[in-house]
Amino acid sequence: MKNDIIQLSHGAGGRQTQRLVSRIFAAAFENPCLDVLNDASVLPWEQDRLVMTTDTYVVTPLFFPGGDIGRLAVCGTVNDLAVMGAMPVYISTGFILEEGFAIADLEKIASSMRQAADEAGAVIVTGDTKVVPKHKGDGVFINTAGIGRLVSEQTISAEQIRPGDAVILTGSVGNHGLAVISARGEFGLKGPLRSDVAPLSGMVQDLLRAGIRIHAMRDATRGGVATVLNELAETAGVSITVNESAVPLSEAVHSACTILGFDPLYVANEGLLVIVLPAGETENALQILRGHKYGSEAVHAGEVHQEANHCVYLKTAIGSRRMLNMRSGEQLPRIC
Amino acid sequence: MKNDIIQLSHGAGGRQTQRLVSRIFAAAFENPCLDVLNDASVLPWEQDRLVMTTDTYVVTPLFFPGGDIGRLAVCGTVNDLAVMGAMPVYISTGFILEEGFAIADLEKIASSMRQAADEAGAVIVTGDTKVVPKHKGDGVFINTAGIGRLVSEQTISAEQIRPGDAVILTGSVGNHGLAVISARGEFGLKGPLRSDVAPLSGMVQDLLRAGIRIHAMRDATRGGVATVLNELAETAGVSITVNESAVPLSEAVHSACTILGFDPLYVANEGLLVIVLPAGETENALQILRGHKYGSEAVHAGEVHQEANHCVYLKTAIGSRRMLNMRSGEQLPRIC
Repeated sequence: MKNDIIQLSHGAGGRQTQRLVSRIFAAAFENPCLDVLNDASVLPWEQDRLVMTTDTYVVTPLFFPGGDIGRLAVCGTVNDLAVMGAMPVYISTGFILEEGFAIADLEKIASSMRQAADEAGAVIVTGDTKVVPKHKGDGVFINTAGIGRLVSEQTISAEQIRPGDAVILTGSVGNHGLAVISARGEFGLKGPLRSDVAPLSGMVQDLLRAGIRIHAMRDATRGGVATVLNELAETAGVSITVNESAVPLSEAVHSACTILGFDPLYVANEGLLVIVLPAGETENALQILRGHKYGSEAVHAGEVHQEANHCVYLKTAIGSRRMLNMRSGEQLPRIC
Repeated sequence: MKNDIIQLSHGAGGRQTQRLVSRIFAAAFENPCLDVLNDASVLPWEQDRLVMTTDTYVVTPLFFPGGDIGRLAVCGTVNDLAVMGAMPVYISTGFILEEGFAIADLEKIASSMRQAADEAGAVIVTGDTKVVPKHKGDGVFINTAGIGRLVSEQTISAEQIRPGDAVILTGSVGNHGLAVISARGEFGLKGPLRSDVAPLSGMVQDLLRAGIRIHAMRDATRGGVATVLNELAETAGVSITVNESAVPLSEAVHSACTILGFDPLYVANEGLLVIVLPAGETENALQILRGHKYGSEAVHAGEVHQEANHCVYLKTAIGSRRMLNMRSGEQLPRIC
């Protein structure tokens, strides 16, 4: 690997991203606080704890149905905090602008960021701006880092997952990735494809305030629901079966995936949580989620079980079972 | 401005960067916690406070005498915390890798980051990696965000500056910018040009622990010492005079600046602080600074005075006085 070069697949969020992170970054940065299995780290702070996360956004195009890179950059970081059981408090933002970028577009993006932060109850407190020459960047790249306050004493982490747990999906799959692809105009996709990009911290807070026990929670971004489930299964040492007929899927996403040969379970979402929790909590959780505007399609979609090999299975509508492997290639580059 | 496009000068850290930030970002993000006058924000946290900062690094080349983008990315964020009187605790890091980048180089960069973080007593706790296609990036861009703990009850801020205060420079000027330019090989620069990139949190902590009163403190990065002094003078509503003969300047930087027609006071440093403090504190502060490996060249370089127009002056070696204006153009692109 050391003589190797970076490929697009290293950024796809699948197996190759995992390898790059663990072999290069986890090795170099190794310390008790570094959490490479989660999208945010819970950290000691004075007598208390705080949660820190960061994400960089390189989506193309910058504007797509349902959102833009600004909304994405704030929601992504908000959601990484939320899945750790933390409410977003402070957000920093770093811009890399390409020479020639329209300032009017930058203004629209900044306004989207403000709107998303307001919705999440967070404030943007500090920032930085760099400019690179033409063809050394691509319009604008945005990094956001976030600090969150834990709102529950629960440890929410893949290690908490137990056989018998239920898996909830909080929305229909594949909307974000296909909305971005359709905005590129590459495949002539039509129909009402619209990104689900949204701040989910309010919905998570409702669950935690109601005392719902949650074992693990992840937002299913790069690599989609299937990749997240594989990561959870691997870390927890369990297998997970998803019932295909239970997975919410819009007609537009279904058609687009059929045309493009994509599996919607591997397509990125930006407003969808995978929640693993004790089976007995499922009904209460679903009721709360469905009362929230970003959780109206929430479903009980699968189960955790004990098995020697730690795999994710899809139980198809006709009753057969196939494996949802972790993929290593690049299916949809630059969707976030 | 709204119909305008981004130019390289918007990233130079001078007047145009200031305008972009205040007209677009400060306007969109406006909130009581946003601190656009400083490189970090002091924020309420539970019963206490914390400090947050972020910076993105796009330096080219990635490796230069005295450091690399990794050391720079950690030191820059560490120093932005230090100048607020905070010790760095947690650092996040976001990578944008260009397709084709050598993984061996990434490993070197990650190792530099770890070394700089260790030296500063900080830990890298979370990260993110994105990949962009060839010619949509430039090797690697790195964002770091940092959380710091205040080690002093002092308010360190430009507003604290008073006429009669002294100005200290903690090292010789222009080393970083010229080391990067020489590494580009563009101007055939030779000689021992070496970046001063260093984590200054230890040196700042020594000052604060000794009870030295500090009114304002800044690391003189993009735009150099002259730009920082202009920002401080403007915010504080004072004028500042720097004594040219007191400014530490290496023979190599002096020669290179003469060849290139640069004023070293506008060239970026990455290991140099501008400290404004009550005149009576100067000697004690200098003694402490000079005992530190990154402060051995520290000098009392100027004075703050009251004047109707808030300017920065250079008193030359022959006794004349000229203005050091805030510049708006791009002198040295991509030095950080």
